[in-house]
Amino acid sequence: MSDLPAAVHITEEGPREGFQIEKGPIPTARKIELIDALAQTGLDRIQIVSFVNPNTVPGMADADAVVAGITPRPGVAYIALWLNEKGFERALAYSDRLTNTGTIQLSASEKFSIRNQNRDAAAQLSGQHAIVEMYKAAGVPVERGSIMAAFGCNFEGDIPIARVVSLTQQILDVAKEHGVTLKYITLADTMAWATPLSIKRTVGSLRERFPDMDFALHLHDTRGMAIANAYAGLEMGVTRFDAAVAGLGGCPFAGHAAAAGNVCTEDLVFLCEEMGIKTGVDLDALIACAKLAEDIVGHPLPGSVMKGGTLARFRR
Amino acid sequence: MSDLPAAVHITEEGPREGFQIEKGPIPTARKIELIDALAQTGLDRIQIVSFVNPNTVPGMADADAVVAGITPRPGVAYIALWLNEKGFERALAYSDRLTNTGTIQLSASEKFSIRNQNRDAAAQLSGQHAIVEMYKAAGVPVERGSIMAAFGCNFEGDIPIARVVSLTQQILDVAKEHGVTLKYITLADTMAWATPLSIKRTVGSLRERFPDMDFALHLHDTRGMAIANAYAGLEMGVTRFDAAVAGLGGCPFAGHAAAAGNVCTEDLVFLCEEMGIKTGVDLDALIACAKLAEDIVGHPLPGSVMKGGTLARFRR
Repeated sequence: MSDLPAAVHITEEGPREGFQIEKGPIPTARKIELIDALAQTGLDRIQIVSFVNPNTVPGMADADAVVAGITPRPGVAYIALWLNEKGFERALAYSDRLTNTGTIQLSASEKFSIRNQNRDAAAQLSGQHAIVEMYKAAGVPVERGSIMAAFGCNFEGDIPIARVVSLTQQILDVAKEHGVTLKYITLADTMAWATPLSIKRTVGSLRERFPDMDFALHLHDTRGMAIANAYAGLEMGVTRFDAAVAGLGGCPFAGHAAAAGNVCTEDLVFLCEEMGIKTGVDLDALIACAKLAEDIVGHPLPGSVMKGGTLARFRR
Repeated sequence: MSDLPAAVHITEEGPREGFQIEKGPIPTARKIELIDALAQTGLDRIQIVSFVNPNTVPGMADADAVVAGITPRPGVAYIALWLNEKGFERALAYSDRLTNTGTIQLSASEKFSIRNQNRDAAAQLSGQHAIVEMYKAAGVPVERGSIMAAFGCNFEGDIPIARVVSLTQQILDVAKEHGVTLKYITLADTMAWATPLSIKRTVGSLRERFPDMDFALHLHDTRGMAIANAYAGLEMGVTRFDAAVAGLGGCPFAGHAAAAGNVCTEDLVFLCEEMGIKTGVDLDALIACAKLAEDIVGHPLPGSVMKGGTLARFRR
């Protein structure tokens, strides 16, 4: 009946995704409070800040203070996001507390890439060679590939699976050329186009073509499909997911439709644990974090299990 | 890869589920407005009221006026809910505009049944014989079976699949004894205990044991699993679903955790249509209804596609 994995690994992205998008200023101390609480739940990989231009992303202006202010917990990898060399250098300054690793990233949508980075597919690919060299020069391991808009794009429409297969090959070729070995490649449903069926078809095609590579899923919930898409991934043997506590990262109730958050971490943990899949996460502690996140941002967040509660309390 | 059905049939329960639970009084005219709008979307089975005690459920005190006020659209079955003979008789008075059919209903949780109806399993079963006779005497067809709390119960915990199989047999035995033929049996996840895995296991066991019977799903979204559970049902060949526009029927944002709504109709339609499964529903018209529902209740409703939008507009 079921081909579900025995365990999954979740990367928590709530602090970065969430505090980046919130309109109001959030005190640095409260960001640190949430990150430190998340580190107590069993989550062992937490993306805590992005090093980006504070004029563009005011919510990340205190990124340095956040990184400096957390109480690092042994066994937890704290990670940062950056979009260019300057951001990467800021992250490098915290090599004592951040786990800095490199990613080879391509967009499945050329229109999206041109729009956001003014780069066509060829320029995007050649840029990745330079980036890998930058990581190697800094002694930072390159562990991950990433394909943005892997399931569809608001500017380009549906993405053919053949293109995702081709981009995966390009990423692996870049890695090979520079002598780095990727642990996994993340398929990002950046604009929430995926359905369980497209997840299954895409992951199925990739696993067939690249049987030795692990694929991770980064799922947005803009159209309410994220948990179903995660389930479809689980059925295909996917064991790595990005997620955001309380569904942080978007505010569908304020009309930020295009920016709706990642799959909600505690809903994903509930899904997995109720089906016998180990997450290593204490669901009650995580729900407490979700409520803390709601208190910090000051408005309702979309997570369901934080409101509906667990089932454990009914099993005596 | 996929064993998905070609088409599904959705029973819209938003007007009944939603207006029953809202705290504030909702003008009768606005209820009628939503029902008439829903009837224009392609939905052809809409549960519009419950005939219950207005002292217990004040939101349904105007049930007669709602039924009398709609503009029946040919081809649309308008249905009512009742909990006892008195309610049934009220529905019978509108046989000209309501499609009244009988249900043989059992609860998978004896504790729930004792708590709500003061009936143990034996009393519950014998009561169904009397109810079927009541329907037959009134000339009302008995078309459906229903198993409440089929996946778990807050008062009793997990429900063994063997019990659901046994209850299904009991329902079929009642039907047979009274010479009625059921079209399908609805499995209700009344208290939102189901996961995609338990849906698959339960439906799989039932289909194996009762290959000629159709099973429908009534899914609540209290823990955010409803769309994933619907997908699991689709993968098992389920083609009948109850749903509520905008996720009406609960207000998770007001702390009504235990009462969270049904699977959201437009999210379910999106899921199906994006995977090539026909619903017969105009998604844009349905989203307009969801926004109308939100306007009527005066607070945010949990549906996602109504906020995130369709993908059709990006496909040119």
